[in-house]
Amino acid sequence: MRTYLDCVPCVVKFALGAVRQVTDDEEFQEKIMREVLHEVSKIDFSLSPPEISHIVFRYIKEYFGDVDPYLKEKKRFNKFCLTLLPKLRERVNKSKDPFNAAIRMSIAGNIIDSGANTNVNERDVLNTIEECMSATLYTDEGVISLKKEMENTKDILILGDNAGEIVFDQLLIDQMPKEIVTYAVKSAPILNDATMEDAVETGLTEMVNVIGNGSDSPGTILNRCSSEFIEKFNESDIVIAKGQANYETLSDVDRAIFFILKIKCSVIARDMGYSNGNCIVIKKNEGESLYMKREA
Amino acid sequence: MRTYLDCVPCVVKFALGAVRQVTDDEEFQEKIMREVLHEVSKIDFSLSPPEISHIVFRYIKEYFGDVDPYLKEKKRFNKFCLTLLPKLRERVNKSKDPFNAAIRMSIAGNIIDSGANTNVNERDVLNTIEECMSATLYTDEGVISLKKEMENTKDILILGDNAGEIVFDQLLIDQMPKEIVTYAVKSAPILNDATMEDAVETGLTEMVNVIGNGSDSPGTILNRCSSEFIEKFNESDIVIAKGQANYETLSDVDRAIFFILKIKCSVIARDMGYSNGNCIVIKKNEGESLYMKREA
Repeated sequence: MRTYLDCVPCVVKFALGAVRQVTDDEEFQEKIMREVLHEVSKIDFSLSPPEISHIVFRYIKEYFGDVDPYLKEKKRFNKFCLTLLPKLRERVNKSKDPFNAAIRMSIAGNIIDSGANTNVNERDVLNTIEECMSATLYTDEGVISLKKEMENTKDILILGDNAGEIVFDQLLIDQMPKEIVTYAVKSAPILNDATMEDAVETGLTEMVNVIGNGSDSPGTILNRCSSEFIEKFNESDIVIAKGQANYETLSDVDRAIFFILKIKCSVIARDMGYSNGNCIVIKKNEGESLYMKREA
Repeated sequence: MRTYLDCVPCVVKFALGAVRQVTDDEEFQEKIMREVLHEVSKIDFSLSPPEISHIVFRYIKEYFGDVDPYLKEKKRFNKFCLTLLPKLRERVNKSKDPFNAAIRMSIAGNIIDSGANTNVNERDVLNTIEECMSATLYTDEGVISLKKEMENTKDILILGDNAGEIVFDQLLIDQMPKEIVTYAVKSAPILNDATMEDAVETGLTEMVNVIGNGSDSPGTILNRCSSEFIEKFNESDIVIAKGQANYETLSDVDRAIFFILKIKCSVIARDMGYSNGNCIVIKKNEGESLYMKREA
């Protein structure tokens, strides 16, 4: 998905949030924000919004080095979601359609998104669980199709999104043959996106094979991922991509992908043809062709 | 009120709204937005947000000349509010405390604010009337103090805000001796702010003395107003300023002002010490000193 002009105020807001995470010095914040505005004024809008955010974030990183401003928040949500997990698992198992319930839980977890919501809290998570358990899923076809494809597959790749959310994804993985599942995380911190540290912390590494995607960008910007990851991405029977940033960065890629997300932005809603707030399970790009391999 | 870093994404969003009002050409919109971002990267943040918006708007005007992109919207809301007026007047007159009810109506009209709400519609106006009629007013002291001062005053200056809202202000003026009221409008179009054309169109000029403030900026930036207006501003017993932009541009001015508004922005809420959504009647700057006169 390209960057629309509507995304520009959000990119500026995102940058401000990031700058504030790394310094309390208001004069310094202002200096960096002026530079960010100048940077954004020259940026290529044919890039996806996460690619632009990534450029801005790297710019901020040049000042502050490899800090992880969301570390505390990531740990907080991992911990909180782990306390919920036993009851949620029981709820899914007891439901009339556990696969459908597990997908809804995985969508609910997607509310923990520091890129879209700068102030999400525990109460929001609990409310979103109830909302998603009764919401309309767009589309039912996506759910049915995913379930059917899972019956005849030799491998499934899940592109994870955020810390905390990664715990909810365990409920979806419960519905799959674990030995054929690979779960991809970011290889370095960006926003509150899940990394290997989060996968270990939440017990995911004991459940399935977890790999880094070789990148520190939001979403999955393939030309910044490792060749090992791209090979896995190309060769997996089923790819499931969680969250908005994965949609933004992969919606135009030429391979079939199941996107599972909660829409939290009116620009993405318009691009997808749904409404803000909708819970989405959709298969895109039915074609067989693969993302071009990296040059060796 | 100074411009906070939180205002920057909003300034960018405001600029985008303004650019879209004057051209549908997306390439041209992008070109101007890039220039706006560059401009904002250099701007003096000690100015108030309306002053910054004004600079951005003037910049856009350089391309498009003296267009009035909000003309249609202003006429639409003037017309709609005039259809409501007879029933609202009856409701105020029949209420237990007509002065209090009239103030609430005047606050409700303040929802018609294209600077803060890019998509306000008729339904929002009707909902806001009901909300404001039952809401807590911050502060009761402001209401009591204004009523008391009105008993012993020789002149009242009201600084108007938006088209449509100007109709609701007639209900407040009903509670005043009309012969001592002066109502100030913008001297040229900016956003959906009321101008003399709106005052004529809504019958306000037949009720009270209406003057232009000599400026085409949002709010009341005194050093851009005419010397006639500043004289009136300095010499009036009571000054009532409607809306957020008047608060932003006059909150630090050294004369007593009654601010009447609905807060629609978390930055202003924080600056005022109230919450987003609150209905405000507050007297600020009790001191007697006047805004310095313009050099002759």
